Amino acid sequence: MPIPFTPLVKSLPSTVPFVGPETLERLRGSPFKARIGANESAFGMSQLAANAMRAAIENDECAWYADPESFELRTLLAEKHSVQPDEICVDAGIDTLLGLAVRMLVEPGSQVVTSLGAYPTFNYHVSGYGGVLKTVPYRDNHEDAETLLAAAHEHSARMLYLSNPDNPMGTQLPGDAINTLINSLPADCIFILDEAYIDFSANPDAPAIDTSNNQVMRFRTFSKAYGLAGMRIGYVIAHRDLITGFNKIRNHFGLNRLAQIAAAASLQDAGFLTEIQQRVAEGREHIYTLARAHNLSFVESSTNFVAVDMGSTEAANKMLEELNAAGIFIRKPSVPPLDRYLRVGVGTEREHQVFSDTFSALISRI
Amino acid sequence: MPIPFTPLVKSLPSTVPFVGPETLERLRGSPFKARIGANESAFGMSQLAANAMRAAIENDECAWYADPESFELRTLLAEKHSVQPDEICVDAGIDTLLGLAVRMLVEPGSQVVTSLGAYPTFNYHVSGYGGVLKTVPYRDNHEDAETLLAAAHEHSARMLYLSNPDNPMGTQLPGDAINTLINSLPADCIFILDEAYIDFSANPDAPAIDTSNNQVMRFRTFSKAYGLAGMRIGYVIAHRDLITGFNKIRNHFGLNRLAQIAAAASLQDAGFLTEIQQRVAEGREHIYTLARAHNLSFVESSTNFVAVDMGSTEAANKMLEELNAAGIFIRKPSVPPLDRYLRVGVGTEREHQVFSDTFSALISRI
Repeated sequence: MPIPFTPLVKSLPSTVPFVGPETLERLRGSPFKARIGANESAFGMSQLAANAMRAAIENDECAWYADPESFELRTLLAEKHSVQPDEICVDAGIDTLLGLAVRMLVEPGSQVVTSLGAYPTFNYHVSGYGGVLKTVPYRDNHEDAETLLAAAHEHSARMLYLSNPDNPMGTQLPGDAINTLINSLPADCIFILDEAYIDFSANPDAPAIDTSNNQVMRFRTFSKAYGLAGMRIGYVIAHRDLITGFNKIRNHFGLNRLAQIAAAASLQDAGFLTEIQQRVAEGREHIYTLARAHNLSFVESSTNFVAVDMGSTEAANKMLEELNAAGIFIRKPSVPPLDRYLRVGVGTEREHQVFSDTFSALISRI
Repeated sequence: MPIPFTPLVKSLPSTVPFVGPETLERLRGSPFKARIGANESAFGMSQLAANAMRAAIENDECAWYADPESFELRTLLAEKHSVQPDEICVDAGIDTLLGLAVRMLVEPGSQVVTSLGAYPTFNYHVSGYGGVLKTVPYRDNHEDAETLLAAAHEHSARMLYLSNPDNPMGTQLPGDAINTLINSLPADCIFILDEAYIDFSANPDAPAIDTSNNQVMRFRTFSKAYGLAGMRIGYVIAHRDLITGFNKIRNHFGLNRLAQIAAAASLQDAGFLTEIQQRVAEGREHIYTLARAHNLSFVESSTNFVAVDMGSTEAANKMLEELNAAGIFIRKPSVPPLDRYLRVGVGTEREHQVFSDTFSALISRI
């Protein structure tokens, strides 16, 4: 019997947004020496988070489902962002929340605007619900807010996606540019502002959060600066009518209890973010220094990775391949005009040393 | 601006499948003294799982995304069930997997058959994708396989859901009855066999797993006997063409890394399940004894809970209310003919004592 998949699911390709480093390790037959390809934190989580998780394990709390309302965590987040708890939805990372946002808004044929080369997982969700992607190229290594907005108007887009600071280039648009975009959105268009990397920015010039505007969703995460990518926990801040949509369709008992506990504990570690920002800033400087030593230009970054210009797409692809073969897990953009860059993640001191030595040994050959 | 939700999402009610115990604790203003209402394990996880999680925390692995292929875990599960790894999909608990299964198969208007009073979260997903539920009443405290099958034929159902052992009554259909159903499914109907409680069954008379049949999906979990409900990890075993459907739409980086690690470690703890089965069997006996002491009949259970007959719906509702007020988190079925039962979970010794004392004190008044 042919399987009665919906026509939409039948039509979807069997592609995945990313191949994980573990898959590559199995293919190459040995573990990577440095893991600087997925923008994960090299500096781990808050000790308060680790202690809270250990206590919960000790206390056999892993046998209990998590609070489906994430009440304590939403209360802490509401305080942090000066919003109300019912203007926040917590779920298993921004990926999960983006999937829900798309499901709420996109029907087969709905137009969705994003940048060419921006977050593949968002695109995966849009395609997964039958949406049609309209892409706008990067301009000067930035997402092009003006042209994205124009495209949203032209296509009567249902969603407009932008990450700020951006991935994969690490650039940050000024708050004014974001605000201009917000104030000029087409009717029936929801703005998806992915701020996964905002905590790394030395100058977090983000527009003020305004939950009275029901066209804006702001996505934040514990995966990056808080060092909890493996725990899968993030949140969206939005007008409560938008949050109601999430609550109608989300998997209420889907959240990991330890993730909830670790996130709440992290928020209470006052000095943690500042320390991480400092260490990531130092890590970026090391990458800048390495690039300069080889006369390569690079993009000043507001994130925990640096786009290094390899001069040509061919050189960048070759370097990626050689680095992977030499035991460095690293990724690069694959579409023009970004594809001549290598995306170098901030690693631990040891990882940076391994990367730096390998890179320097390879650069003369490429 | 009205929010441009899809017509389907706009039409959905703001209901949730369950209210969590934490919500009830906030309402009553104090913590419960016993948590025996969500069929969670009272006996925690394997020490191998706890140790593996502690080691991963120590090793800062929480900062890393999990292997999106769950390769190691699928390999172990394939061995355990004598199937191939590509006949298994792992995700954040059966709830998540049921949501994906519905999304793969159900379009607005698709008919879905289940038992009246069976798993609300499955129904939540079906409604969430626009499916139409057709329900069949329980018969003699069992899901009624014959009538479910007839209903699937009558409605040309896209999915037929059955849990075995069943929740909320704790009964188990013989493997023969399940096999008869499987062999007589209508074309274009996928059989959703939820086996969350199978590990508790003293006589796991489940039909053999046959992944050559592409009409059957079997759902298993680490939430119940393995004591990992809070970690959110489960899996589905099915024909690889069905698994391909999951892989086209699932959130590939959505799984918690510690959950993956804990599940894999649990599988390597040879004696663990047997010990849990023993302790749960003892716990059931305590509940049987309590029921007998009060001249109440009960349903022999293949799970970690026991349906105790309170004689009338009114008495059962009253007992539920009084128990909750007295600090016992417990639930009961809400539809006839199941609603005169109280669903009593196996707790720790201490929890059973608290429940038993409270129940005995209340019973004379009700």
